[in-house]
Amino acid sequence: MLKVTLLGTSGMMPMKDRWLSSCIISAQGHSILIDAGEGTQISMRRLGERFKPIDIICITHFHADHISGLPGILLSLSNDGRTDPLVILGPRGLARIVSSLCVITPGLGFDIICREYSDKGLCYKTDDLTVTAFPVRHGIPCLGYTVTLSRKREFDKEKAAANGVPMKLWSTLHKGISAELDGVRYEPDMVLGRERKGLKVTYCTDTRPIPAIAENAAGSDLFICEGMYGENDKLPRAKETYHMMFSEAAGLAKKAGAARLWLTHYSPSLTSPEDCLDTAAEIFPAAECGFDGKTIELDYPD
Amino acid sequence: MLKVTLLGTSGMMPMKDRWLSSCIISAQGHSILIDAGEGTQISMRRLGERFKPIDIICITHFHADHISGLPGILLSLSNDGRTDPLVILGPRGLARIVSSLCVITPGLGFDIICREYSDKGLCYKTDDLTVTAFPVRHGIPCLGYTVTLSRKREFDKEKAAANGVPMKLWSTLHKGISAELDGVRYEPDMVLGRERKGLKVTYCTDTRPIPAIAENAAGSDLFICEGMYGENDKLPRAKETYHMMFSEAAGLAKKAGAARLWLTHYSPSLTSPEDCLDTAAEIFPAAECGFDGKTIELDYPD
Repeated sequence: MLKVTLLGTSGMMPMKDRWLSSCIISAQGHSILIDAGEGTQISMRRLGERFKPIDIICITHFHADHISGLPGILLSLSNDGRTDPLVILGPRGLARIVSSLCVITPGLGFDIICREYSDKGLCYKTDDLTVTAFPVRHGIPCLGYTVTLSRKREFDKEKAAANGVPMKLWSTLHKGISAELDGVRYEPDMVLGRERKGLKVTYCTDTRPIPAIAENAAGSDLFICEGMYGENDKLPRAKETYHMMFSEAAGLAKKAGAARLWLTHYSPSLTSPEDCLDTAAEIFPAAECGFDGKTIELDYPD
Repeated sequence: MLKVTLLGTSGMMPMKDRWLSSCIISAQGHSILIDAGEGTQISMRRLGERFKPIDIICITHFHADHISGLPGILLSLSNDGRTDPLVILGPRGLARIVSSLCVITPGLGFDIICREYSDKGLCYKTDDLTVTAFPVRHGIPCLGYTVTLSRKREFDKEKAAANGVPMKLWSTLHKGISAELDGVRYEPDMVLGRERKGLKVTYCTDTRPIPAIAENAAGSDLFICEGMYGENDKLPRAKETYHMMFSEAAGLAKKAGAARLWLTHYSPSLTSPEDCLDTAAEIFPAAECGFDGKTIELDYPD
């Protein structure tokens, strides 16, 4: 199960009832925070999200509305008693930016490991969770992120019986752990059947629509994408500021074959996103407007 | 008239319904913002406070809960079309801290003038408003601030008549402007009577109680002071962290001869400040608990 919650859905400036874009994704006792604009720590407390499970913070880019809340998050983690190192992913220059912002957070109780995007890509794994960054097209270097939760292969009862695997080892081998009993060694492959699709969430803001986004979001169970502007006459503005229309986000969701699209990162000028949802839904019917606190628990289909 | 509003009243960490300590003081079309913790710009929007009139930002010290919202405030000012320079007052090191935080706010439309406290003091005047900083005692350099709105001297009708001042010049001279009529020059002093007390607000956090605070807060119409802890058994903790008890804030208000005391900057552990108000009120009866959005319009007594 992968739980996804939007902590904020505003772009550029926080509104009084719509805070800066941020998202928290949790599974298997781990949480991944994507972006940390001003107010993210308050939003987490309001929504009952816990700081302790955060293993990794993914920063899309260094505009203030996506990172100004980082010092507050770091202090909240420290006040929560964290001693384990924290991994932060982001574009090139991340270490310098984090170091500058941390001038107001002396004495944190843990180390920060900054990992910057390079030509070799950027990827982080913990248990069955994998976070992968991909470059998008904004005015400054900016990353999208996919989060996948892999799923164990099917348990093949007939294969297990044919291989003479004792029943008491089935569970262990199904977890991918080799075992030995009465001097005989058993391997996971002796009980494992076909591969099964895991869960995938793709998060993407701020950017113009580019083919790489649809490629990286391919088959996502949830595609969270910026929709800075809804009204069609805002396309020139979207191009100028390297942002996206609702309809463009919907086009990417369709190309990606995503199951769901959540729009987020609305312009302050877009006071009522729901009024423009049709412009996305006519291209991708499973489009929904994100809002602060919107949440879903994604589960395997069968 | 001096309008004072508490934008937040929490210390250390923002709570879901109590945000980081900050205060805005407005008079004569000017606003003074004291501290800018994370969320200050959101709090301003929620309370209907405007960004444009902010002439000056006063930073008490560089702990994140007092300054992490500065980038957001600067961007809000810039998005509001500001081109006039902005003055920021603070302890020594201010320019370096502001410069570090501004790594995420490139392209602001105005200049920032950092003025740091020195042995010569630190003072800023605009129209009839004066802001004065004074050092307090925290773990790191920290400043309290007094804001005064001066008042014109009384108009002395008998003196004006005795000096033969034509009635049509009375208003001009009362404003302190010299005038000439029919070849005769008239000076303000020809109509001005006794001095009149203006309005004074003192803001003070984070600090242990020291005599200089009561001296600087002397005669304040409103003394806003930290009350990190209410329960008496927290005194050792208050001493250890360089903070104050409700009762200690009340003692300072009494010594200062303040008209009112508002407590603020509560510890996250102090969930219900009102429950401890008695510990202040028995020393200084005009003590009140501050809360986010608490506001007052102070006017001259007569």
